[in-house]
Formats: sequence, structure tokens, C-alpha cells
Amino acid sequence: MATLAEKAAENLTILREKKPLIHNITNYVVMNYTANALLAMGASPVMAHAENEVQDMVSFAGALVLNIGTLTDDWIASMIKAGKKASEKGTPIILDPVGAGATPLRTDAAKKIIEQMRISVIRGNPSEILSLRHANSTTKGVDALHSVEEAAKTAGILAQELQTTLAITGPVDLITDGNRMVRVSNGHPLMARVTGTGCTATVTIGAFLAVDDDPFSATATALAFFGLAGEIAGEAASAPGSFMIQMLDALYTITPEKLKAGCKIQNE
Amino acid sequence: MATLAEKAAENLTILREKKPLIHNITNYVVMNYTANALLAMGASPVMAHAENEVQDMVSFAGALVLNIGTLTDDWIASMIKAGKKASEKGTPIILDPVGAGATPLRTDAAKKIIEQMRISVIRGNPSEILSLRHANSTTKGVDALHSVEEAAKTAGILAQELQTTLAITGPVDLITDGNRMVRVSNGHPLMARVTGTGCTATVTIGAFLAVDDDPFSATATALAFFGLAGEIAGEAASAPGSFMIQMLDALYTITPEKLKAGCKIQNE
Amino acid sequence: MATLAEKAAENLTILREKKPLIHNITNYVVMNYTANALLAMGASPVMAHAENEVQDMVSFAGALVLNIGTLTDDWIASMIKAGKKASEKGTPIILDPVGAGATPLRTDAAKKIIEQMRISVIRGNPSEILSLRHANSTTKGVDALHSVEEAAKTAGILAQELQTTLAITGPVDLITDGNRMVRVSNGHPLMARVTGTGCTATVTIGAFLAVDDDPFSATATALAFFGLAGEIAGEAASAPGSFMIQMLDALYTITPEKLKAGCKIQNE
Repeated sequence: MATLAEKAAENLTILREKKPLIHNITNYVVMNYTANALLAMGASPVMAHAENEVQDMVSFAGALVLNIGTLTDDWIASMIKAGKKASEKGTPIILDPVGAGATPLRTDAAKKIIEQMRISVIRGNPSEILSLRHANSTTKGVDALHSVEEAAKTAGILAQELQTTLAITGPVDLITDGNRMVRVSNGHPLMARVTGTGCTATVTIGAFLAVDDDPFSATATALAFFGLAGEIAGEAASAPGSFMIQMLDALYTITPEKLKAGCKIQNE
Repeated sequence: MATLAEKAAENLTILREKKPLIHNITNYVVMNYTANALLAMGASPVMAHAENEVQDMVSFAGALVLNIGTLTDDWIASMIKAGKKASEKGTPIILDPVGAGATPLRTDAAKKIIEQMRISVIRGNPSEILSLRHANSTTKGVDALHSVEEAAKTAGILAQELQTTLAITGPVDLITDGNRMVRVSNGHPLMARVTGTGCTATVTIGAFLAVDDDPFSATATALAFFGLAGEIAGEAASAPGSFMIQMLDALYTITPEKLKAGCKIQNE
Repeated sequence: MATLAEKAAENLTILREKKPLIHNITNYVVMNYTANALLAMGASPVMAHAENEVQDMVSFAGALVLNIGTLTDDWIASMIKAGKKASEKGTPIILDPVGAGATPLRTDAAKKIIEQMRISVIRGNPSEILSLRHANSTTKGVDALHSVEEAAKTAGILAQELQTTLAITGPVDLITDGNRMVRVSNGHPLMARVTGTGCTATVTIGAFLAVDDDPFSATATALAFFGLAGEIAGEAASAPGSFMIQMLDALYTITPEKLKAGCKIQNE
């Protein structure tokens, strides 16, 4: 069986050969940066959010990315329409519940989206992910969670309840599908100083979902790749402006071999 | 008669003297980058899309750029309102039919826009441009076109039918108004790895339309200028993040003399 | 009493300790850049514009930034809702009336916003600020104003009428609350060649408002900090693309000591 480091190299190789179309319904803040990140790594981004177009667009896509960062009701409706179509066609969906837990609009929208489609992966920080628990979840009572490690205790149960892969990201990322769990420690502190780093991690997972049938390995390998890009950027830049440009460069220059050698994925 | 290389230098000189206001109704993904490109080259960008404002705003503008990259019905209505006003005032309009041919919303919107105003230039890739044929166009039957050279065969007829200048861009750009045809071979492969490169080519044409009464020469010279910026950026950068920043720098630093010397415009 | 240079250093120190949440309802063009600027300087940006969310979101914020750069009626409604809530809670509000004076939509929206909430600071260029005069303002009759210095003559009266601090920015910035007036001469000519420089000055003031109870000193010190970032960027970059990246870097690397030493704030 291939290790996850080998799988990472394989996924990146296939991604650059197939150049899958990734359909994004995402927030205004990060659209440009995530489109550039997808292009740099070898995927083909499209952003389209009109309710009367999303079903057509998602039909061409290798994956659908839903991100609620600058949400309004009409965008929720489009996300649900696109997500239902993607579910029908078996196209993988990744949800980034930006700000879930912070306002009722976001928490409710994230839950509504989860209920109405088959989501392969949800990526967020600990508070966002834990806000997605059902009212009767057995993971209740952990409202004060702040770190990935605290979230780890309940993430496995939540992944089983939501029947999805969860990626809880921070200095060390935790990935679980309820049965398996790994941690990815690639990354750099400056990633927290660039807007949309989390959203860009999400689209990277989206791209890997388009070439890897197993959402768990797609997520772990995508986050190792993305974190390695941060490490390489951090060698070339010491402040956030230069760093965010170097990140795009690294997503383009990292070879499958370099990724295999640089992966920091640990089994539990 | 001035050569197109001389005309390019002249257009750039006038652009930097007059700093024309370019009104953009464009997509969310590229707004920041195209505004920065316009500022870098010497124009004054404004982005405004409210249906109750676009007529006022376009009245001050030297050119109107319509780009359907992240389209919804309310934006189509604003584009048409702005375009009718621009047509009335004789202000040049350039349309970028992003994704036309991919979804009915985009193809139909592009056609509707073309019907309701006087468009000076349409810029797109081969599939986008060819999707604009009328149902009874004599250019029909070429649905499988992929390259600029294949599109060249029918572009002249289509330009006559649409009574506009067409710019079909790719590694080599083709420009025709139905009577004249030139190719521009300035450019760099990394341009395909930055989101909104096509959209930025479009606003560059928009800026040149504001200073050159002949849409055909405005388009050819703008694309030579934009492609030359890509060449210069490609000398300084070898990955897409750095490249997109170097592109903005080059749009600022290229002198009229350098442009005249670097133009690669070939008559048919 | 601390000088404004000392106050600038103190504000930057507190900003980086407290990392205040800055709620932005702003234009599409600059969202990414202003979010990155806020993160680079040490604040925490959030962009949220849904009418059914803005009251919840602004309740967490240390300051509210309203920017009318790509305005539509629904965004005006959200701005007013957020602004009323912020006023209730005593959260400082800064308004950037982008394009006020250019179209009725913008001028009317800016005036409506000002009437319905308690605004701490308004930042704009001379034309934008002067367009905000009441119909019966004693500052009338200065429609042809173009420079900050011409605006200075009437700015003090207008600040008193609007009961706010005004920041009229240009090569030299003028700040007045109707009683006090200072000029800030930090800055660099390339700032005019990057889109959203004014909007980014505005969010910098927003961040400083969250840590300084006096809007006048918050504004003057923020503009000195922002202008100093421009000066430092201008030493490292000679064209707008590189410059805008170096600006973000400088917002991150400027220390309180460096700011204190570099402040160019002059009393009238």
C-alpha cells in the first residue's frame, strides 16, 4: 500500500496532467487569490454563482468548492442548487464554513448546506467545525474548544455523525473520516497573516478531490502540499505581502518528488 | 502612413497624457487586478455596477468595459443600461464574453448585450468568440474550433456580421474588423497561469480605445503592449505569483520607444 | 502630554497586542487588499455585508469601516443597519465616501449614511469630502476645489457641521475635528498608482480607532503610519506591482520605534 507521502506525489502528478475544472462558489475577498492558487498548482478554476447557471457549470466540474465567507441568502440558494446537482452526479463537494459559530446566518447556512447534499470534506478552524454539531450531537458540551488538539477529541465522532471527512486546520492540521485520523504539520506562521489562507487550503483540497477518490487521502495530501508551499514561501519571504506571492510561486514549482520528500503526515 | 508599431507608441504616449477614465462592469475575480493594471499603464479605472448609477458613471468615461465573468441577471441589466448610454454618446465599448459557449446564461447574455448596443471590440478565446455566431450565421458548422488559427478562417465573416472588431487571443492573437486582419505574437506562456489575463488584455484594449478612434489599430496595439509586458515579466519571474506582479510593473515601465521596438504585429 | 509621534507608537503597540476585529462593509475591488493590510499591521479583518448578519457581526467589532466604492441599494441598507448598531454600542465608525460628488447615488448614499449614525471619521479626497456639505452649509460655493490646501479653508467648518473628524488625503493629508488641525506629509507618489490606496488608508484609521479613543489622534497617527509604509515600500520598489506588495510588508515590519522616528505630523 502506498504511503500518504507517495499518494501526495501521485495526486499532484495527476492534477497537473488532468487540470480538472474546479467550480467555486466562494467569497468576494479570496476569489482572485484562490483562482490564482488553483491555476498555479495546475487546476482550472471557474467562479460562477448565478442561480440560473450553477447547475450547468457544476456539470463540467471535477469538484465543487462552497465557501460561505461573504454570505447572503441568494448565494446560499445557489450553493444548494449547485450542491444538489453535484451530489446527483457524484462530483465531490468541499465546504468551507467560514465564520460558522460566529453569527446565526453562517451557522444556519452551513448546517442547511450539509443537510441538502453529500459533502465529501469540510475544512475549517476548530470553532467553525465544532459549531456544525447537531442539537443532539454526542459531541455537545465542548463550546470552549480553541485548539486543534482539543477538537481532536470530538472530531472523530462528529465526522461519523456528519458522514464526511473533517479537516480541522491550524499550526497542525487534523484530518479524520471517523475511522482514520492523521495530523499534518507542514506550514509556516506567516500563513496566518495572509487573508484567505484557510480558503486556499480548501480549494487545494478541492483540486485533490478531483483526482483522488478517497476524500481522506485527498485531504491529507492536499494539506501537506499546501503547508509545504508555505514552508518554501517562508524561506524566501519574511513579511506577508511577499509571502503570499511566494506561496503562489511554490504551488507552481513544487514537484511531486519534492512533495513526497517534504510531506509531514503523521498517523495518530 | 504610420506603421502599427508607431501607432502603438503614439497610443501609449497619449494614454499617459490623457489618463482616460475607463468604466468597468466586470467580474469579481479580476476587479482588483484589472484596476491595478489600468492604473499602472496610466489610465484611471472606475468600477460601478448599480443599475441606478451606471448611466451617470459612463457619461464621464473614455471607454466602457463589459465583462461577463461572474454574471447574474441584475448585472446584465446594468451592462445593457450602461452600454446603451455609451452608444448614444459615441463612447467606445469593449465586451469580454467570458465563458460564452460554456453555459446558456453566458452565451445568451453575450448575444443580448451585442444586440442592444454598438460594440467596438469583442475580445475572447476562440470558443468564446465563435459561440457568438447568429443562428443563421454563415460561419456555422465550426463548433469544434479550438485554436486561434482555426478560428481565423471564420473570424473575418463573423466580424462583418457583428459589425465589430474581433480579438481572438491565444499564444498568437488574431485581430480583424472584417476587412483588415493582423496577428500579434507578443506574449509569454506564464500569462495562462494567472487568473484574469484575458480580462486584463480586455481592459488594456479599453484604455487604447479611449485614445485611438480606430478600434482595429487600438486593439492590435493594445495587445502588442500587453503581450510585451508579459515578455518583460517573464524575464524577471519564473512562476505565476511573481509573474503577475512583474506584469503590473512592466505595464508601468514600458516606454513608447520600447513598445515601438518590441511590437510583434504581423499583417496577414 | 504625549506628542502625536509618541501616540502613533503607542497606538501601533496596542493594535498589535489587542488585534482588534475590524468589520468592513466595503467595495469588491479592494476587499482582498484591505483585508491583507489589516492582517499585516496586526488587526483582524472581517468582511460581512448581509442585511441579516451585519448587526451580529458588528457587535464583536472594535471598529466599523463603511466604504461606498461599488455601491448598490442593498449594500446601503446593510451599511445603515450596521452603523446604527455600532452607534448604539459606541463602536467607532469610519466612512470612506468613494466617488461622492461624482454620481447622485454616491453623494446621496454618503449623506444618508452620515445622517443615520454617529460617524467618528470620514476620509476622502478633497472632492469627495466637500461633496458632503449640507445644502445650507456655510462652506458652499467651493465646488471647484481640487487640492487639499484649498479644502483646508473650509474643512474646519465642515467638520463642525458634520460633528466628525475629517481626513482629506493627498500628497499631504489634512486632519481636522473642527477644533484641531494637523497635516501629515508621510507618503510616496506610487501610492496613487495602486488601486485602493485611499481605501487602505481608511481601514488603517479604522484599526487605530479601535485602540485610540480620540478620533483625531487615531486618524493622524494612522495616516502617518500608512504614509511611512509607503515611503519604505518606495525605497524597495520602483513600479506599482512590487510597490503594493512592499506596502503590505512594511505594514508588518514597521516597529513602534521606527514609526515614532518617521512620523511627519505638523501642527497648523
